[in-house]
Amino acid sequence: MPSVSFSKNSSVPNPPAPTAKPATPDVVIVGSVALDTIVTPWERRADVPGGSATYACIAASRRARTGIVGVVGEDFPRAAWNLLRRAGVDLSGLQCASGRTFRWTGEYFADMNQRRTLQTELNVFEDFRPELPPAYRRAPLLFLANIAPELQLHVLDQMAQRPRWVVADTMDLWIRTARPALRKVIRRVDVLTVNESEVRDLTGCASVPEAARKVLRMGPTYVLVKRGEYGSLVVGRDVWRVVPAFPVERVRDPTGAGDTFAGGLMGELARSRGNGAAALVRAAWFGTVLASVAVEDFGPARLLRVPERELERRLSILRESVRYG
Amino acid sequence: MPSVSFSKNSSVPNPPAPTAKPATPDVVIVGSVALDTIVTPWERRADVPGGSATYACIAASRRARTGIVGVVGEDFPRAAWNLLRRAGVDLSGLQCASGRTFRWTGEYFADMNQRRTLQTELNVFEDFRPELPPAYRRAPLLFLANIAPELQLHVLDQMAQRPRWVVADTMDLWIRTARPALRKVIRRVDVLTVNESEVRDLTGCASVPEAARKVLRMGPTYVLVKRGEYGSLVVGRDVWRVVPAFPVERVRDPTGAGDTFAGGLMGELARSRGNGAAALVRAAWFGTVLASVAVEDFGPARLLRVPERELERRLSILRESVRYG
Repeated sequence: MPSVSFSKNSSVPNPPAPTAKPATPDVVIVGSVALDTIVTPWERRADVPGGSATYACIAASRRARTGIVGVVGEDFPRAAWNLLRRAGVDLSGLQCASGRTFRWTGEYFADMNQRRTLQTELNVFEDFRPELPPAYRRAPLLFLANIAPELQLHVLDQMAQRPRWVVADTMDLWIRTARPALRKVIRRVDVLTVNESEVRDLTGCASVPEAARKVLRMGPTYVLVKRGEYGSLVVGRDVWRVVPAFPVERVRDPTGAGDTFAGGLMGELARSRGNGAAALVRAAWFGTVLASVAVEDFGPARLLRVPERELERRLSILRESVRYG
Repeated sequence: MPSVSFSKNSSVPNPPAPTAKPATPDVVIVGSVALDTIVTPWERRADVPGGSATYACIAASRRARTGIVGVVGEDFPRAAWNLLRRAGVDLSGLQCASGRTFRWTGEYFADMNQRRTLQTELNVFEDFRPELPPAYRRAPLLFLANIAPELQLHVLDQMAQRPRWVVADTMDLWIRTARPALRKVIRRVDVLTVNESEVRDLTGCASVPEAARKVLRMGPTYVLVKRGEYGSLVVGRDVWRVVPAFPVERVRDPTGAGDTFAGGLMGELARSRGNGAAALVRAAWFGTVLASVAVEDFGPARLLRVPERELERRLSILRESVRYG
């Protein structure tokens, strides 16, 4: 197991600046931090900052103070540290371990909806054990991005009080290999985010509406079904909301779209201070807008640069798109 | 070639009752009339009345006087004649030819989104040449359901005046084998309905938003992209509307969903007397509601039985589903 230290005490080449006073973030996000190599039919990019926590934190930071919990290796580049820092992400929960950063290589096909993983090197992520800085344990919003359910449970156990919103993501791997732990996670969250094939696998129901309702019976108040280019669904006991997708003409790199969506949702949920379905739905619309920006370029950098008025423009196009007439 | 006669003069076993006076229908629909054998993972049904014109006409009849143009064989069962008659469909354009009715056998897989054709017997449909009764030639709305583009052109040429709305459907077969004739059809219609794989094949664009805009440059004012369980898109030069799907929990037989959608749309367009995008979009919402009813049972029979208040209930659920919050 690589030795682990919190980055603020770390002596590796690119440590974040020490934060003056540990403050409780509005949103805490736990997940992977990676360097991605992305192949599309038209382009190839290596060492793009990625991972679920990276996208989600940068997205959430558009609306709220966000703390990241993850691990990087000594090779995590200065530019990537700076990206997170410029986004305003609190880095006191980002561990820096000796070894290499988690690396993922994936390839997209022409319609950009299908991808395959060419290579995965877990590296320092293999022995990652998320430890929350004390200030994080009272965060009002917690997003458990896609990591092993056992680790998601370990994070939940560290919280000093039940957050107002706990949202968890997962993936097909955990549904197949860690179902009992995943079921424990699902019992303890307010919102589970899943894509359509995941919700089918999790429940054994081919019908997505039926599958979503079955997940509700496992514990969460809402299920958020991610449908890629079709947008998403927010499903609750008496709630059925369709969130349309923004019509992106040229998707350049879909990596991180789901994490950007979830991160934007968390940020907007924090900003609105809402508790109910309406707040969740509006937050999902905001997450959708941010995800539409993310896919227009490689990596999460565009999420920092995009001006607020462009986000507003897209939201108004999106709202108009579902007009009855 | 089988001998062809208009059914009102026909001496075959199950002729429709002669209509007292030939009236111009609000909507004329040209397409296939079939007897389907449908296999799902749970059920199998033989000789179900089907075909694009059958579904579309019964759907349109919920809102407007509709005339069907098609061909059946001598074996077309009395129950199927009666179904069309009870729906109020004008049958003066339904030819009855000596021989057997067009038959299609298809199989659906567990998620009901994929199907494969097991058998096609064209029978009398092979030599079908649509001839419009004189009264039909001034119809204000014309739907060219999925038949060979050459036949769609032949119908267009028979119209005594340009209808207010011409809507055409097509399929992958014609995109591959009859592209020049199809391009002529596309130039002459107001609305082209296509599904996502068709719009990609037609344009060579993997991105659906881009592909839809490319179709607009071929002539039509609107493209209506059918997205199955995700609903549909109405795309015009300055129009982008998402029509969500109604959340059907148990799809029993998806056959004819697209034709029901288009037929419902035509009927509502006729009823509203609208000309612009708003009328088309509202008509698409109505078509969506009708399609959600059709897929809950085999064949189009449920479209006749479903009470008006159930259609209203579904429309209000659908409208609520896209609420922002």
